[in-house]
This record gives sequence, structure tokens and C-alpha cells, in this order.
Amino acid sequence: MNDNKKQINVGLIGIGTVGGGTWTVLKRNAEEITRRAGRPIKITHVADKNLDLANKVVGNDATITDDAFALIKNPDIQIIVELVGGVGIAKNIVLQAIENGKHVVTANKALLAKFGEEIFAAAHKKGVMVAFEAAVAGGIPIIKALREGLTANRIEWAAGIINGTTNFILSEMRDKGLTFADVLKEAQRLGYAEADPTFDIEGVDAAHKATLMAAIAFGIPVQFDKAYIEGITKLESADIAYAEQLGYRIKLLGIVRRQQDGVELRVHPTLIPEKRLLANVEGAMNAVLVKGDAVGLTLYYGKGAGAEPTASAVIADIVDVARLCDSEIAERVPHLAFQPDALSTNLPILPMGEVLTGNYLRIRVEDKAGALAKITAILAEQDISIDALLQKEALSKGETDLIILTHICKEKAVLAAIEKLEKLETTKGKVQRIRREELL
Amino acid sequence: MNDNKKQINVGLIGIGTVGGGTWTVLKRNAEEITRRAGRPIKITHVADKNLDLANKVVGNDATITDDAFALIKNPDIQIIVELVGGVGIAKNIVLQAIENGKHVVTANKALLAKFGEEIFAAAHKKGVMVAFEAAVAGGIPIIKALREGLTANRIEWAAGIINGTTNFILSEMRDKGLTFADVLKEAQRLGYAEADPTFDIEGVDAAHKATLMAAIAFGIPVQFDKAYIEGITKLESADIAYAEQLGYRIKLLGIVRRQQDGVELRVHPTLIPEKRLLANVEGAMNAVLVKGDAVGLTLYYGKGAGAEPTASAVIADIVDVARLCDSEIAERVPHLAFQPDALSTNLPILPMGEVLTGNYLRIRVEDKAGALAKITAILAEQDISIDALLQKEALSKGETDLIILTHICKEKAVLAAIEKLEKLETTKGKVQRIRREELL
Repeated sequence: MNDNKKQINVGLIGIGTVGGGTWTVLKRNAEEITRRAGRPIKITHVADKNLDLANKVVGNDATITDDAFALIKNPDIQIIVELVGGVGIAKNIVLQAIENGKHVVTANKALLAKFGEEIFAAAHKKGVMVAFEAAVAGGIPIIKALREGLTANRIEWAAGIINGTTNFILSEMRDKGLTFADVLKEAQRLGYAEADPTFDIEGVDAAHKATLMAAIAFGIPVQFDKAYIEGITKLESADIAYAEQLGYRIKLLGIVRRQQDGVELRVHPTLIPEKRLLANVEGAMNAVLVKGDAVGLTLYYGKGAGAEPTASAVIADIVDVARLCDSEIAERVPHLAFQPDALSTNLPILPMGEVLTGNYLRIRVEDKAGALAKITAILAEQDISIDALLQKEALSKGETDLIILTHICKEKAVLAAIEKLEKLETTKGKVQRIRREELL
Repeated sequence: MNDNKKQINVGLIGIGTVGGGTWTVLKRNAEEITRRAGRPIKITHVADKNLDLANKVVGNDATITDDAFALIKNPDIQIIVELVGGVGIAKNIVLQAIENGKHVVTANKALLAKFGEEIFAAAHKKGVMVAFEAAVAGGIPIIKALREGLTANRIEWAAGIINGTTNFILSEMRDKGLTFADVLKEAQRLGYAEADPTFDIEGVDAAHKATLMAAIAFGIPVQFDKAYIEGITKLESADIAYAEQLGYRIKLLGIVRRQQDGVELRVHPTLIPEKRLLANVEGAMNAVLVKGDAVGLTLYYGKGAGAEPTASAVIADIVDVARLCDSEIAERVPHLAFQPDALSTNLPILPMGEVLTGNYLRIRVEDKAGALAKITAILAEQDISIDALLQKEALSKGETDLIILTHICKEKAVLAAIEKLEKLETTKGKVQRIRREELL
């Protein structure tokens, strides 16, 4: 072992699930990690408001405090690991750590999606790294893949199952034919969904992650406020069953795609062909599919949450930072993959109306002659072409479900068509619409 | 753009498929790659014995020569890309480039699997990098994932479909019910298999790659001569069909696994449960499944060969090297993931007899009372327990196929049992045996 290299001291702020996992894994695998990094890496200080918890987890193996800012000021600490979460105190912690010349490792997607511009600019100015592998897709090294593994490529798009809670819910709805509400209750009981599951089921968490992916894939600023976000609360079991009959599965995807004039950044339920590996990612697992112009399709799969999987990403970042910690080139790879002075200037986030997708439409229709003709006429008017059509046997009351898969068309054309479809006297209630991607 | 950073000059040796792809992609995406790397990266010199080809591909955009060693001596070149292949001249090129203080990027798995120890030691001594992302699984950034993305983990095992030719053949055999020989011919016609396909179909190519994976996963020396290698030539369509009836698919896997006293390093056809993503990797695609103690299972999927996918990996390495090219810490990450003076000393490659696997046994038996009793007695004697049993209806001649899936047991116990099974008077011909992995 190279004895010239001194131990790296890490200050860990937040000893909850991921913090506890980070502590445990770094301790358990200390010997192997040191053999990789070439120098010992140790969490020397831990800060948490809950001193009892901190004492229970850490014991006498690190200095414990309830003052996060004491760690940030400590000249013996080179790397601050922020696992507080949220955009309140965490923002101050990260910005002050940077200001004090500390490198930062964080799993905080909400913080970076909202304040990434400010944070990365401050870090670049100070010559420190803010590493965030754990912020997207948990233990999967997707940030490293996008930012370093695929540097040769013009990234065309990425599409990911990047929220385990919603994927668990959708998998259960399909497997057991249960309603969204019933599965959500079960997920909460099993700990796969939080007591307040809004951020997950409304797609906000996935949008935080997609925002970061868009930035590093295309060299654009972090722009969470421009993301289109639609959750899974309106999905019905019937849609999952109809999709299956057509050879599709429904997944909540975070999708970022480069068009000629801008970038699509969107989170919504999506029909994808059942043969794709991504369609077979079940339960709480995550996966990201990336299309590069040279490499073609690559896929990255693993656990997107949980104490040790997330700790795996946090520690990979710590090691990465530790390797160049005390050099002048700590910012070896730019935070957002592209040099800060070389971001794309001609790639705004496109308004949702300009987004291109295929579609699944479920229309409850009166089983009357001529109904189908009127529907297809409306679609034709908007230049929407039909890829597949499924008419179910009549339900009660002389009504039936008509399922239409459309080819790719603009969002605004679909919305215009739906508005007209809903006004037809043969149409009962709302048209259910789910976007569809072939992912090729 | 940071103007302080000078252009990196690359010397490319070998302008065949991958070399041509590297030239094309680096040229096409030059602007985007520069924006990532923070400095222009250019192939300024190209060497190939075939000057006509080099002229055709490169034109006047680089200096062309048929003397590879002229590039290695050129003081203006910082990075040598070796895409000659094989273990003859390529070895001299790589070693002399290192000796001259050049960084090397190579896709040459055969060279590194056989002479990695010598090459990496020389590079470490000189403080230069020998980067080899393209040597394993083509465009998939699996070396980066194993060496950097999963540093927090004690890697337990990795199992990969790391040879596209054999995966294409096995996929076609299953889809179309054809024999190995027929599909091989088709694969050769389509360009998925070479005129002399030995290295692919006998598992040698996969073993080169598995050897490198074992080294970086477990911190052990590169030891190709200790790898167990079994190809796919003896697989019959019947086995693929029987496996399917039992819920399995057959894939040629490269498997590296840590046991208490050593490491398993092996390539062979393997039954894997059809529900695993790995089982659904079809055609010429590659994928590697990795089990880490913290992260759990992660999977990496993409194209394992071809001009541009391989170029994607070559260029990612060039950019990686370019970032630290002229610094004193070019060897930021050790070649074999662990510091050269911190390799594992207590993890020899285990002899095949000590390897643990489940098994598929197909026994052609005379349809006689008592035959099954004798077979199960032999297995019990070797402490091999049966997980599933499938007896087919009698074939012609009063014979039938008996399929047995065993639980995990030692290789030597299985071999001993097979020897006895083949001596039974009710057994006709050889016992077909294929290993089986659950991959959990």
C-alpha cells in the first residue's frame, strides 16, 4: 500500500436510512475499499439532530454532534456527505461546505434538480466536486455511465424506470389485477411507499431525476421547472389489461429526448412493448435505457433505493472524489458532463405540445353504427394515424371500450383530437390517454 | 472553452472495423466530445499495413504510415490506440508505447488476458495508463462500472453474456429449432460469425473477457491459463427445448465467483431461469450481471461488438486518459481496480473440481422398471440432491429421455456420478450435462 497517501476524513451529515447504510458499508468493506482507493477513507465525524440514533449507529467510532455546520468548518474534513434531504437546511449545508472548500457527496435529487445551477457554479468556482451518483437510480452507476462511459456519443435519448415505488405499484396492479388504491395501501404497509406518497406517485421524484439526466445527457442547464410531470394515480386496471392484450406493459418513465430544436423532458405512464428488457423490470427495481448514436442502446439495471444500494453509490462517489481530493484537478469530469462554458445554448426544454409520442386511447363508446367512422375521422383530421385497434365485446348498457394505438404524433394534435372525441355524442365520459414509446 | 488546454494527439494503429469506427465517431462527434473533455482530441496519425485502406478511410485528415512504430516514437503523440489485435505485433506495440511514455488504449482482450501482468506492471512503472474498456463487452461501460461504479462493494460474482456470436447462435437455435451446425452457417453468412469461428464457439473469446473481469472484480492477477473453458458445440436442440419446458434458457456465460478459499473462473453453457433479464438478452447483444454485497444485483446491457459500439468504448477511454494525460496522476484508477501492491494474495483460481453449480442432466434410458431407482441411487451416493425431474414419453426403440435438475453441488461429485451413470446398463450413450445457475 502506498503510505504516502494520507487518510481521507469524511463528515457525514444525516444518519437515517442512507446515512446508516453508508456508515455500515464503509466500515464493513473498509479494507477492500482502501485497497482500491490507495488510501484509507474514514467517516471521522457524524452530525444528526437525533443524537441518540447517531450514538446507536456510530458508537465511539466517530465524533458525533448535532451541529452540521461544525463539520463544514472542520479543517480536518475533506469531504462532506449530505444525506439530510429536502431543499431547506440541505441547501445551506451544501453551499457552505463548498464555500469552505469541501468536496460534497449527496443523494439529494430534489436539491440538485431545483438549485443545481447555483450549486454547481459555486463548486466549479471553488474547484471542488459535488458528486451525486446516488441522486439518480440509487445503486446503479448511471451518472458515471452517462457522464464518462458514453462520452463518445451524441446521446439521442434516455428513458428510465427511476422510481421504485411506482414500479412496484404498477407491477402489483398487473400481477394481481388490483386497483391503484388497493396496491398503494399494500405498498405503504410493506414500506415501499411513504405515508405521504405524493412525490412518488405524482411523478415528482422521477422528474427530479430525469431533470438531472437531461442536463448531463445533452449539456443543458438543470431546469426542473420546465419538466412535464404526470403520475400514475389515474391508471386503471383495465388499461393495464388492455395494454397487455396489445403486447405492451405500462411503466412510469422519465424520458429525455433530443429533438432538432430542443429537448423533451417528461415523466408519465408509458406503454412499452413487452419484449423490451425495460418492460420486464419488475417490483421496486430501477433501470435506465440510453440511446447513443455510436453505441446504440445500452441498459443499466439495479436497485433504485434502500440503505445499502444507495450507500453503494454514495461511497463510489466518495472514493472517486478521494482519488483526486487534494489535487488541482479535482473537477476531472465536469459536474454536468459538459464543461461549464460549453453547455448547449440552442437546446431549450420543449413545451409539451411539441413533444412527439405514440398514444394509447381508450374510448368508452355507445355500441352504435357509425361511431367508429366519426372517431377515425377526427383522428385523420389531426393527421394522427392508427397503428392498432381493439374493440372489446359490448359491456353492459350497450357500451364498449374501443382501444386505439396511434403512430407517433405531436402532443398538441392528440390533445385537440381528444377534445373533439369527448364531444362526440357516442363517447361516454373521458377518453383515457396514455403515451406510448417503442424505445428503439 | 478552456483555451489553456492543448489538443491531445492520438496515434491510431489498425484501421480495420473498430479502427475505422473509432475514426468515424471521433470525427463525427468531435465538437460534442471536446465540450465534454475540455480540450480537442484528434487522431493525428494513423498506421496500418494496408495503406490503401487507410487512405480511403482517413484521406488527408491525418498522417498515414505503414510503420506502427513510427507513431510510438513520435513525441507529438500522447495516446496510442492499439487496434491491431492478436498477441504478436500488438504486444510489441503496447510494450514499446509504454516504454516511450505513451498512454495506451486497446480493445485487445486476448493480449491482456495472456500478458496483462507484464503489460500493467510496465505501465504502472512508467506512470501511464493502459485503458481497455473495449476489451470486455464492447460498448457497455462494464469496466468502468466494476472498477469505479461499484468500489463500495465486495463483489460476490459476475456472470455475463460476453460473446455475441454464441448468443446469436443460441437465440436462433431456440427460436427456429435448428441445429448448431445449421445456425453456425447462417451466422457466418450474416457476418455474425467468422470464417474460422473457433475462438467464439469454443468459448475462448469469452474466457479472455471473463479473465479480465475476475481480476478487476476480486483484485487478483490476470490468469487466463487457469480459466475453465467449454464452448457451445455440443449443445443439441433437444436440450434447449427441454430446458424451456423446465422454465430455463441456455446461455454461454462467463462466470467469476468468489468462494471462501478462491475464485471460480469459468465459461460454459448455462441454464438460467427464463424470468431473469439475462435470460432475455437475445441475438448478438451482450449483458453482464454483477452481484455486490451492498448494491445487490446490477445489470449492464448493450452491443458487445461492431464498429461503432466498440469505438464508443475506445473513445470513452481516450477521453478518460486525456483528462489526466499530462498530470502526475494519470493512473487515477489502478489498472486492475485494486492498487498493484494490494492484490488479493489468498484467492487462487480454484480447480474446476471445486466449483459449485446446479446441473441439468439428460440421460437416454431404456424404458425399464428399476432404471430410475438406480439413477437416483447413484446421485444420492454422491450427495447430489434432485430439484426437478422430467421423464419424456418413450421415444422409438423403447428408450426415453430422462431430464434431471440437481441442486448445487461440487463439480467433482457430478463428474463421478456421470461416470457411474454412463456405466449403467440401462443408460444409452453419453449423459448430456449442462451447468445451471439461479443468479440470485
